[in-house]
Amino acid sequence: MALDFALDGVKVLGCHQVHAGAYSARLLAEMGAEVIKIERPGRGEWIRTGTARDSLPYKGESYYIANMAVNQKCITLNLAHQKGKEIFLRLVRWADVFIENLAPGTMKRLGLDFEAQKKVNPKIIYASIKGYGHDTPYKDLRGVDYLAQGRSGLMDMTGFPGTPPTLCGAPIVDHHAGVLLAFSIMCALYYRNRTGKGQSIGIALTDAAIDEVFEQNMEYLVTGLVPRKRANSQFGASETAVYKAKDGYIISYIDNWPAICRAIGREELINDPRFNTLEKRGYWGPAFSMMEEVQYTIEDWTKTKTRDEAVEALRKEGIMCERIQSIPEVFEDPYTKARKHKIFVEVEHPTIGKITLQRSPLNLSETPSQIKSAGAPLGYHNEEVLGKLLGYKSEEIAALKKEGVI
Amino acid sequence: MALDFALDGVKVLGCHQVHAGAYSARLLAEMGAEVIKIERPGRGEWIRTGTARDSLPYKGESYYIANMAVNQKCITLNLAHQKGKEIFLRLVRWADVFIENLAPGTMKRLGLDFEAQKKVNPKIIYASIKGYGHDTPYKDLRGVDYLAQGRSGLMDMTGFPGTPPTLCGAPIVDHHAGVLLAFSIMCALYYRNRTGKGQSIGIALTDAAIDEVFEQNMEYLVTGLVPRKRANSQFGASETAVYKAKDGYIISYIDNWPAICRAIGREELINDPRFNTLEKRGYWGPAFSMMEEVQYTIEDWTKTKTRDEAVEALRKEGIMCERIQSIPEVFEDPYTKARKHKIFVEVEHPTIGKITLQRSPLNLSETPSQIKSAGAPLGYHNEEVLGKLLGYKSEEIAALKKEGVI
Repeated sequence: MALDFALDGVKVLGCHQVHAGAYSARLLAEMGAEVIKIERPGRGEWIRTGTARDSLPYKGESYYIANMAVNQKCITLNLAHQKGKEIFLRLVRWADVFIENLAPGTMKRLGLDFEAQKKVNPKIIYASIKGYGHDTPYKDLRGVDYLAQGRSGLMDMTGFPGTPPTLCGAPIVDHHAGVLLAFSIMCALYYRNRTGKGQSIGIALTDAAIDEVFEQNMEYLVTGLVPRKRANSQFGASETAVYKAKDGYIISYIDNWPAICRAIGREELINDPRFNTLEKRGYWGPAFSMMEEVQYTIEDWTKTKTRDEAVEALRKEGIMCERIQSIPEVFEDPYTKARKHKIFVEVEHPTIGKITLQRSPLNLSETPSQIKSAGAPLGYHNEEVLGKLLGYKSEEIAALKKEGVI
Repeated sequence: MALDFALDGVKVLGCHQVHAGAYSARLLAEMGAEVIKIERPGRGEWIRTGTARDSLPYKGESYYIANMAVNQKCITLNLAHQKGKEIFLRLVRWADVFIENLAPGTMKRLGLDFEAQKKVNPKIIYASIKGYGHDTPYKDLRGVDYLAQGRSGLMDMTGFPGTPPTLCGAPIVDHHAGVLLAFSIMCALYYRNRTGKGQSIGIALTDAAIDEVFEQNMEYLVTGLVPRKRANSQFGASETAVYKAKDGYIISYIDNWPAICRAIGREELINDPRFNTLEKRGYWGPAFSMMEEVQYTIEDWTKTKTRDEAVEALRKEGIMCERIQSIPEVFEDPYTKARKHKIFVEVEHPTIGKITLQRSPLNLSETPSQIKSAGAPLGYHNEEVLGKLLGYKSEEIAALKKEGVI
């Protein structure tokens, strides 16, 4: 059997929106699954219009949708309308997987939840993301990334001593929940191929966030101490820190004191009794104050260098370190440009024209991921899905549109 | 066919260590895959001993390993020794998947890379995580989470205006790369089941980090503006922020001005012309200064409440918000305790006794994940794997130990 993509032939139906659920559908679509994305007629999903800002309006479309809903067939369907429900259940019969991250209770209220879907497709895999899981006192609350960052302890540990709890600059919990769902779906498909059984999958944003602080949870279990904001020195080794350079900042990692002394031209400090053990230099030793002294000593040197000069000199001594970059610098980074399977790819959008999209970081030698098409305008594939897939005639589709079904 | 776990029968061999690769193996193991973890004789993988701190020493073992290497068979094998290589290749023949996140070039130098493995098992899925991908000018550099956070732009956007670039408090890139690998492995297994073909998979930490700033990358592409540190107001709506309460902080999300005015007892502000549009209240409108005024107005109220009081009052008006919690509070949280499939579970460790471990947030109705055993002491399963699986006699195993092979 010859297949172009790992997930060729896998059929996914979704009421996925905004980030977490949508990212999950995107990963499956990039690996070759056929994905039909359902939105409400008129306005589409929340992020298509959202607040003015979030949807990232661009030439009459939402850039967010163009970039997130790649490789998908975008259709509209009014799930509150009886005819909309019928069409939906026909699509459930077609599908292997259904994904949704709507507000809790929405699919049940519509009469289209897992129980209803199982009746027309007993093998369906029903995959959902909610803020607070399905069996907790908070299950009916809507959740979003940032609330999960707050509740999980992650914000409490981010930032500098003295600052308020700090959000991570990107919605990392949405992202984490999205891949966890995609992984779970693949496990469920694998299981179904062997047993014929479908199932339901529930990922909770709050769980995903608690999972991301895995290491700090352990630290608390072992030491009984509250994990604190450690600024940029996250590990025991004091040399792990952010250092100011002439043109920005660098970050270094790993304890290798002799190598650092050589790199900064301060060999006399290698055996200096004030610095010569990890305990003396580190957060966790008895001599806390030496940590700051170590960091100032290194920064006295980095301040006289550009980021590139500092990174080059440190790497020459085998020290792991990096430039801290802004987003525009990442786009210009030789790293970003060197990948054979590009991170940023140019694709033709049906109405916008050429548009730059970001590929997910999946690299499989035989079945590479691929962005074949940008996220489409609202209802762009109505005719194709209703006509070719479900067999509706043009005049029937026109009537459905008139009735507000699509 | 009746199976207890989604991945029953899937065989994984790994030289995974520390976080990213190890987390990937852990996810597969929790879903039921049989995982053999290879470490060097004597010291084990890096985190077993690591720096004193990172391994989290606890009753003579590494808590880190106990918690990370769950459901796995821990064996030692000297891959530099000819007999070690032979045993390794026998295990490759047994395996469906091989996982490693060693320093770049290690497996090749040992003569045990993908090419060598394919010769003994043409269907092997070879899955690796590296800092900088396999086809970039930086591919030979070792990478870790925090360097990827720096290079990707994530640090540049985290923190408050005026602070240096800020690390997210947890190694979220390691986590993200780990699930991406697990997802990729499942795609490759799915593909192999249909085509008989193995393949190699490479996830790069730097790619994973650039993927996590997906939204900000788009924002830059659309607006041409450098995404800045936005403190805790990540979205356009000014009410999305962190507010001080009597006993800590809360975080609120989403623009709903009338609801907030009602919640804080300031109904007169609902139609106040200084505040009555999103543009006036938000980051992105012409009246930037109103954003601070909005936030101070809300905080004047939250400061008089405890977190619970504030959250309850805001939720009553339909506003999404959350307590910001510390790690000890997360352990005591009714949410954490309510899950039917517990987040923190107690397991018997072979030498430590009872120990609390964290389950990954996977919830599948038919094939729930499960922590069956804690990560074992170094070489704990040598006899079982070499004896039962490969058929070595006790005296042969003793001889291998004497020769430093295991």
